[in-house]
Amino acid sequence: MSTDKQPPGRTLRVALLGCGVVGTEVARLLTRDAHEFEKRIGASVELAGIAVRRLGRERDIDVPAELFTTDARALVSRGDIDIVIEVIGGIEPARDLILTALDHGASVVTANKALLAEDGATLYEAATKAERDIYFEAAVAGAIPIVRPLRDSLSGDRVQRVLGIVNGTTNFILDAMTTHGQGFGEALDEAQRLGFAEADPTADVEGFDAAAKAAILASLAFHTRVTLGDVYREGISDVTASDVRSAKDMGCVVKLLAICDYHHTPDGPAVSARVHPAMIPLSHPLASVRGAYNAVFVESESAGQVMFYGPGAGGAPTASAVLGDVVGVARNRLGNVFGPAESTHAQLEILPMGRCRTRYHIAIDVDDRPGVLAVIALAFAEFDVSIKTLRQEGHGSDAQLVIVTHEAEDSALSATVDKLRELDMVRAISSVMRVEGES
Amino acid sequence: MSTDKQPPGRTLRVALLGCGVVGTEVARLLTRDAHEFEKRIGASVELAGIAVRRLGRERDIDVPAELFTTDARALVSRGDIDIVIEVIGGIEPARDLILTALDHGASVVTANKALLAEDGATLYEAATKAERDIYFEAAVAGAIPIVRPLRDSLSGDRVQRVLGIVNGTTNFILDAMTTHGQGFGEALDEAQRLGFAEADPTADVEGFDAAAKAAILASLAFHTRVTLGDVYREGISDVTASDVRSAKDMGCVVKLLAICDYHHTPDGPAVSARVHPAMIPLSHPLASVRGAYNAVFVESESAGQVMFYGPGAGGAPTASAVLGDVVGVARNRLGNVFGPAESTHAQLEILPMGRCRTRYHIAIDVDDRPGVLAVIALAFAEFDVSIKTLRQEGHGSDAQLVIVTHEAEDSALSATVDKLRELDMVRAISSVMRVEGES
Repeated sequence: MSTDKQPPGRTLRVALLGCGVVGTEVARLLTRDAHEFEKRIGASVELAGIAVRRLGRERDIDVPAELFTTDARALVSRGDIDIVIEVIGGIEPARDLILTALDHGASVVTANKALLAEDGATLYEAATKAERDIYFEAAVAGAIPIVRPLRDSLSGDRVQRVLGIVNGTTNFILDAMTTHGQGFGEALDEAQRLGFAEADPTADVEGFDAAAKAAILASLAFHTRVTLGDVYREGISDVTASDVRSAKDMGCVVKLLAICDYHHTPDGPAVSARVHPAMIPLSHPLASVRGAYNAVFVESESAGQVMFYGPGAGGAPTASAVLGDVVGVARNRLGNVFGPAESTHAQLEILPMGRCRTRYHIAIDVDDRPGVLAVIALAFAEFDVSIKTLRQEGHGSDAQLVIVTHEAEDSALSATVDKLRELDMVRAISSVMRVEGES
Repeated sequence: MSTDKQPPGRTLRVALLGCGVVGTEVARLLTRDAHEFEKRIGASVELAGIAVRRLGRERDIDVPAELFTTDARALVSRGDIDIVIEVIGGIEPARDLILTALDHGASVVTANKALLAEDGATLYEAATKAERDIYFEAAVAGAIPIVRPLRDSLSGDRVQRVLGIVNGTTNFILDAMTTHGQGFGEALDEAQRLGFAEADPTADVEGFDAAAKAAILASLAFHTRVTLGDVYREGISDVTASDVRSAKDMGCVVKLLAICDYHHTPDGPAVSARVHPAMIPLSHPLASVRGAYNAVFVESESAGQVMFYGPGAGGAPTASAVLGDVVGVARNRLGNVFGPAESTHAQLEILPMGRCRTRYHIAIDVDDRPGVLAVIALAFAEFDVSIKTLRQEGHGSDAQLVIVTHEAEDSALSATVDKLRELDMVRAISSVMRVEGES
């Protein structure tokens, strides 16, 4: 931003909280490209301090040792810091540090999806009160520019749906299961061996990471507040090789999707956010997102279907997103302005999972005897669930019915499955999975 | 943007220049969603006038007849207009109207790629002098947010290459040639029948439209000025069914690509921008961009590979991009700030096509006699072009050599082809096409 008030030759002081993989890369690039940043921002940017847990650790960056401190709180309270970059992660002490930084007049750039999804409102309110920016492009889908496109580029449009592959670990695992026919455990082992999954993979595998991103995406897309607690969540640990094969038979692939929907209900507009594995057709642009890549697919009224694709994690990609935010925040500092921290004017109701409309793929092991089909069909009819396709496979003790429903409320679909499980002639429900990506 | 100075209850007056497909949609949405825009911007937006060529034409929008005028110049000179939306297209009178608008204190949103590529500098300078914004998200790749991601989100990174499918008409035609085996003429006819190509398809088919977008993309990506005249351009009218088959045989597909590169030359950094048909591997994310869709693939140092995908044209998608800009420009007006119109600090040399490095696929009809291969190989060696793969097909009078080179300067590759044409035993060069998308 430029205004008449811009003082010449100003230096902006940056404090970095956290110096892990992302922090190290941010510090390295801020230092190496100092001259370039000066030209792009219109003021020089100086790394004024780096808060770390332990001093004296070997670090792969060329910055003066005296910049390191273990007292993050003192660093953000100095009063002469213009921009605080928070890449510690987790709820505390990150929240306290960000609030203290804003309170002392700094603008904030953060990659902390967990904190934003859990308690973004507190941060946004503090930023607004302090008349400072809080930017968080790196919090969703790493280096893929998605926060600004949703907040700015699509701000003149009505977003109807966001479908995202926003977790690289689970996409890598599902891709391996699809490509090599591996089971979940085997694919997870490989992901861990190759560094695509952590030793404790719970946050990724059980969908917590994706759910945090879904909350942020839904808030941005629909101008309303959606928090982690509002997001329905299922992970991929129950996805079987058989599910993946069933998907293939249908011309589909299994992906862990973050799905944010705008609903027109009889009681007015509402939104929903959910994360669960789903089958999507191979023809869908998200189907070809391989390995640890991420992609976010946005459907809006005027723009139609747009998709953003790229690396969803990693030190360098995340640093790229952080530094793009630093440039934006720095320009605002120079212009003495700040952007809206949050857009919540829509204040929409959050629809529970049961009321979301989706389709189910259900594979049922049945006794191969007369009348089976009628009984099964009756179970679907009882809950007003309409069957789109039905295929019988095998005979005798191997007989299996593969059913794909039309769209219905999730509660009705799930009640149908419960009912099927009670039926005598149903030996087992061998696969249940939602189907997305088609109308 | 928010500042203390924001006056309460302000109304921003918008003038619309042009009321064709895009303009009609912009007017319709500005009117229908007035309440939503007010909430997103923090001030109401009022459509103050619409400049059209002829009054009294039937239009599919519900706006007061007195808003229409044929005197665009008077409209932008009124002095009370805050934002001018230019969707007339072409050089004049668009340029004069935009300059007049800026001169009278309006900010500008334009979708005019031809004007920006031809003479953007004049507009950017006028905007900077007037301390007003000029936004142009709709000028490149329709509704796909690409201008802001390049300008803002990747502003902390170093872009190395932009590869784009930025013209829907040519992508539709090439897709039809690939899918149905049609020749160029037949595919063009179909595109015209279906409304994907204009009656005079020159601007699209000969790559002028893509070249304008390439100039804009290169300027944004590399922080330097690149104009239409700097862009090397070849269209698709010479692409044959045989080229498309050759591509298939190689596991490739033919696309019209806009390619912007950052070069490290012995004389320092430089950039290049070019538009031409090229074979890209099916595994490349751009290969699956079908029909009239567009996509822009960006390689940068830290972010790695990111891609933006969506509808590249059309009234509603373009209107979405225009209105996103209107929201951005409006927020800046309220904050009394303006963004940098252009980032040209890098001031890089433009490399001519001859010095761009690429690979060639060459199919040569040869006499099937001893020594042919040696003579052909010598022609490549003469220009230091190294052969990556060579395949002989057919025998006798049907003998054909299919050669793919390693990367070399385009001038050397093109000199090699000239040399081949002179050779006795070469009956014809049946296909020459660049190969991109692999290193």
